[in-house]
Amino acid sequence: MSKALVVLSGGQDSTTCLFWALEKYDSVSALTFNYNQRHKIELESATKIAKLAGVPHRIVDMGPIFGGVSPLTNYDHEVEEYTDAESLPGGLENTFVPGRNILFLTVAGSQAYVDGADSIILGVSEEDFGGYPDCREDFIRKMEAALASGLDKPIKIETPLVHLNKKQTVELAQSLLGCMEALAFSHTCYNGAVPPCGTCHACLLRARGFAQAAVPDPLVERLKNETAA
Amino acid sequence: MSKALVVLSGGQDSTTCLFWALEKYDSVSALTFNYNQRHKIELESATKIAKLAGVPHRIVDMGPIFGGVSPLTNYDHEVEEYTDAESLPGGLENTFVPGRNILFLTVAGSQAYVDGADSIILGVSEEDFGGYPDCREDFIRKMEAALASGLDKPIKIETPLVHLNKKQTVELAQSLLGCMEALAFSHTCYNGAVPPCGTCHACLLRARGFAQAAVPDPLVERLKNETAA
Repeated sequence: MSKALVVLSGGQDSTTCLFWALEKYDSVSALTFNYNQRHKIELESATKIAKLAGVPHRIVDMGPIFGGVSPLTNYDHEVEEYTDAESLPGGLENTFVPGRNILFLTVAGSQAYVDGADSIILGVSEEDFGGYPDCREDFIRKMEAALASGLDKPIKIETPLVHLNKKQTVELAQSLLGCMEALAFSHTCYNGAVPPCGTCHACLLRARGFAQAAVPDPLVERLKNETAA
Repeated sequence: MSKALVVLSGGQDSTTCLFWALEKYDSVSALTFNYNQRHKIELESATKIAKLAGVPHRIVDMGPIFGGVSPLTNYDHEVEEYTDAESLPGGLENTFVPGRNILFLTVAGSQAYVDGADSIILGVSEEDFGGYPDCREDFIRKMEAALASGLDKPIKIETPLVHLNKKQTVELAQSLLGCMEALAFSHTCYNGAVPPCGTCHACLLRARGFAQAAVPDPLVERLKNETAA
């Protein structure tokens, strides 16, 4: 029986990965990291989405490990604002937390080892990585090798979105049973705003993907309907 | 200017590594992990030893990440007792925390990146690893590659003890200025006992190393003198 552990942030990419895993694996569970995120709404989104997917869900409290290194974990810094997706700068964003995915994969690897899972699913994308080196496939393959050696057990790291852009990720989500419904509860905005701020890096990338796929964002639709009701 | 970050547990091996680094690097700092250790004496030892070495010292609180996985982090389990070092079983001890060194190296890598350190020093030994896969050189080299890729910066992982047995580690310590004096405050016993219990895996390995090197253990000598005083 194949068993997958999905790293679920509650965002668009990890939500899509969760429903992708449900179609591919016999058994799926989800793992969310609480690492002094700026926004508790991310944890609430992850919890709601895991419930919609009907999978066991664990939230691991990372304590203060990454406190203060990035504006995502430190209230003293401001998130950068952009006017449109085309104006996004190259290179590293200031939301870079050195080694965040290294840490997530390490803890997920330990959890997968204990749970007897054979695969970890991570929603990274080289297209949208904003300069994050730990979102690249080169890193994923090296981390997979390090985990297999350090745990003395081969655990596969699957990254179904690694070569997809946001448009293709939206199209993948459309093909996965229940995924669009769950995306209505996903969270993306770096500013933690509901409705999304529309001007941060994450909001712009998400909006562009749905626009290019010519699909309404289920989150935007849900909020519009709730406001109208 | 060369800069090293030493992972300091407060035990014999990491203490020896700290004094090794002081002779090899222009700048040295120490990092200790608080991961629900059974014994706060480990943190106290690390603090005392960093002070003796005159290096900046940071304790990172790992939160509940590894709680419950090993008897080292869980009070419900008993530490195994042995009568002598020869009777130690092969394979994995029950003190195995899956991925502990993977996690330590991940956080140390992030810290080294932020600090501008070019090397991480870790006191693992293949000779005494008790079956821990994440103490082997194969893992260290793979983790080094994963960190370099994920951080997009080459950070070396130095393991000066990896091919030494405990006798050789004692001999190395004797050659390092101030190291034996610091070892008088190091801590090894899995049971957190002062004086050391003498029957756990760690105590037996330590005692055998000093005996084979025909050197009195400075910790034992210090405790003897304090009792006599």
